[in-house]
Amino acid sequence: MSEHSPLDLAAGDPYGPHNLPYGVFTPTGDDRPRVGVRYGDHVLDAGAAAAALGSPHADLLRQPVLNPLMAAGRPAWQAVRAGIREWLTDPGHRAAVEPLLHPLDGVTLHLPFEVADYVDFYASEHHATNVGRIFRPDGEPLTPNWKHLPIGYHGRAGTVVVSGTPVVRPNGQRKAPADPAPSFGPSLRLDIEAEVGFVVGAPSVLGEQVPLSAFRDHVFGLCLLNDWSARDIQAWEYVPLGPFLGKSFATSVSAWITPLDALEQAWTAPPARDRALLPYLDDAEAVPAGLDLHMSVAINGHTVSNPPFSGMYWTAAQQLAHMTVNGASLRTGDLFASGTVSGPEPEQRGCLLELTWSGRDPLELPDGKRTFLEDGDEVTLTAWAPGPDGSRVALGEVTGRIAPAVTG
Amino acid sequence: MSEHSPLDLAAGDPYGPHNLPYGVFTPTGDDRPRVGVRYGDHVLDAGAAAAALGSPHADLLRQPVLNPLMAAGRPAWQAVRAGIREWLTDPGHRAAVEPLLHPLDGVTLHLPFEVADYVDFYASEHHATNVGRIFRPDGEPLTPNWKHLPIGYHGRAGTVVVSGTPVVRPNGQRKAPADPAPSFGPSLRLDIEAEVGFVVGAPSVLGEQVPLSAFRDHVFGLCLLNDWSARDIQAWEYVPLGPFLGKSFATSVSAWITPLDALEQAWTAPPARDRALLPYLDDAEAVPAGLDLHMSVAINGHTVSNPPFSGMYWTAAQQLAHMTVNGASLRTGDLFASGTVSGPEPEQRGCLLELTWSGRDPLELPDGKRTFLEDGDEVTLTAWAPGPDGSRVALGEVTGRIAPAVTG
Repeated sequence: MSEHSPLDLAAGDPYGPHNLPYGVFTPTGDDRPRVGVRYGDHVLDAGAAAAALGSPHADLLRQPVLNPLMAAGRPAWQAVRAGIREWLTDPGHRAAVEPLLHPLDGVTLHLPFEVADYVDFYASEHHATNVGRIFRPDGEPLTPNWKHLPIGYHGRAGTVVVSGTPVVRPNGQRKAPADPAPSFGPSLRLDIEAEVGFVVGAPSVLGEQVPLSAFRDHVFGLCLLNDWSARDIQAWEYVPLGPFLGKSFATSVSAWITPLDALEQAWTAPPARDRALLPYLDDAEAVPAGLDLHMSVAINGHTVSNPPFSGMYWTAAQQLAHMTVNGASLRTGDLFASGTVSGPEPEQRGCLLELTWSGRDPLELPDGKRTFLEDGDEVTLTAWAPGPDGSRVALGEVTGRIAPAVTG
Repeated sequence: MSEHSPLDLAAGDPYGPHNLPYGVFTPTGDDRPRVGVRYGDHVLDAGAAAAALGSPHADLLRQPVLNPLMAAGRPAWQAVRAGIREWLTDPGHRAAVEPLLHPLDGVTLHLPFEVADYVDFYASEHHATNVGRIFRPDGEPLTPNWKHLPIGYHGRAGTVVVSGTPVVRPNGQRKAPADPAPSFGPSLRLDIEAEVGFVVGAPSVLGEQVPLSAFRDHVFGLCLLNDWSARDIQAWEYVPLGPFLGKSFATSVSAWITPLDALEQAWTAPPARDRALLPYLDDAEAVPAGLDLHMSVAINGHTVSNPPFSGMYWTAAQQLAHMTVNGASLRTGDLFASGTVSGPEPEQRGCLLELTWSGRDPLELPDGKRTFLEDGDEVTLTAWAPGPDGSRVALGEVTGRIAPAVTG
């Protein structure tokens, strides 16, 4: 320990006591993953602190994954969060807590929860419109259903990986319209999708819908998410049953899950609807469920986009209500993502397909032009939300570096 | 026990020592689910037998789900199967084993494994052609990619349920082409999809493809599967990202998982390919991976179809190779299904959409006409495969009865 205590954060630290995201880490020289809470540039061993301070919730925190805490439900989430804030800020706990803080650069961060089902939505009107213009230049950019329901599909839960995991360029079939037959090889159009992921804590019962108003009883928190996409593989495979291998090779999530209770200042009204919604999706009278998140996308440290999450047409509450309206049940660990976040301006687009207009307009980066990702490129998504008293709440970053395709 | 031992099966019993499917059951008056093996009309408590007979594999069998056995890999599967066959057929074990056999009609059967990811394919040329003709009457029935790759998509693992679970008619949005806007309510076009599901045992490593030749090292066994489908919900939602709520309310699987080693006499060559396949899918020189399964579909006890699985264009081995060719990893408990099994003849079609040609030609059942399923209808899928010496191997049936939609 230096003379400067890790409990003394600079004013306005975006990982201060108003934030307190959860993760799972292993300290240097140990091999037992455990629940941690980020505080400044340190990680609190939350289970050890709970045991040391006699918390009634120690059993939820002395775990190798967040799932038991997530399953415990909102009253428990609020009680645990209040306890952790007290441990970190009450001078009376200082001596007990300080030894349980590990410098962030000395720990290994893990996938923080066991993913049950993964669903990806398509909720940005700007993204869906751009993609429609690129893929169907002679048709209406939005399909007729787009403004009536949040379009989504199931992705592969087993290949959700934590930030920092290398992403191997996928092999697969691709066929340009002019090619007589498909060819096989590494994807030549590997892309980012900058998204926000929502993590379900409390499960629901098969056959029962989760209404808009129950969103915060079920959703534990959120993460940043990069839904890596091989555009050439996707374009050839996706008719008629949707994306499959163009997406299933990897989906990266941040190591930190931000509790919804850390985002009280970030709730905002979603955009005005220009179609009447069916009652189960109609949020005109509901508590605003948009979120004012300011996202950034960087390639090799160079910012290429700043997508605003507040402009998303469909909210996460609507996505949850839609996903369960047919009676489908939720499990602890279900992950659902927003879809690519794109704003109305060119520099607010959340994927290279849009940023380079399908490769027509390459990006000029300090290390050369980019249409799609090259081997060795490192992509980093970051975001912040407004916090109390003018502060910011940082969301955990999600990074991934492209490794060359496997050959032979 | 009657004077007739449950170990003495009639000649040719389709659940004889050549079959030995695995399930999970709870005996009457007990509350601990455990691994069972079906033998005739009884279930062997496999973990208790393993313990009683000193099996080195008792830890794999004294479990509430099949996943530990499934994860153990093919040499263990073969050793365990050989042991169980010996326990059931060697007169020296009779006294120990007989008390561990429970009459099937006195036990509760459970979902036999924890489902990891669920993928549904679309592998019957007859089914895909019929569906294409119904939905796109003016276009080519098969999309250009269909004969180059086994089309598939991810479904919802959390709503896979065991045979016998009631299926609640889903609510959702549906919109006929002539309707000005979508309406909300119970699906009016609720359908069956008669399929075969393949259950992954041994996992694979992220980034590594599973070749055609490794199919039997990874796949533990198969089940019958009914991928219930709400055609009206599906038709409105599925462009451009594929089926979602039209499928995710329930997928029923049989309570019994048939080991691949029980199907030695059922392997058969798949249909001739009329397009050259890329090397990773080319099975011209491979061990035949088609399966001669004879399926039946019954509504309220009345057989409406007899789909032949041997005619499926894409084999399960090709599906597994395709699903992993982009580096996606397999987990123990991954379930992938064939897609609706339909043969070339009208009475071989595996769903009502085809059997009634989208409702145009109702079926005449003893209890009235059917276009799609009505509340109270019970659907049962059964199947058998050729076994040794002219015997049959029965696959476990999968049933489900339609319960009325939830209102209000």
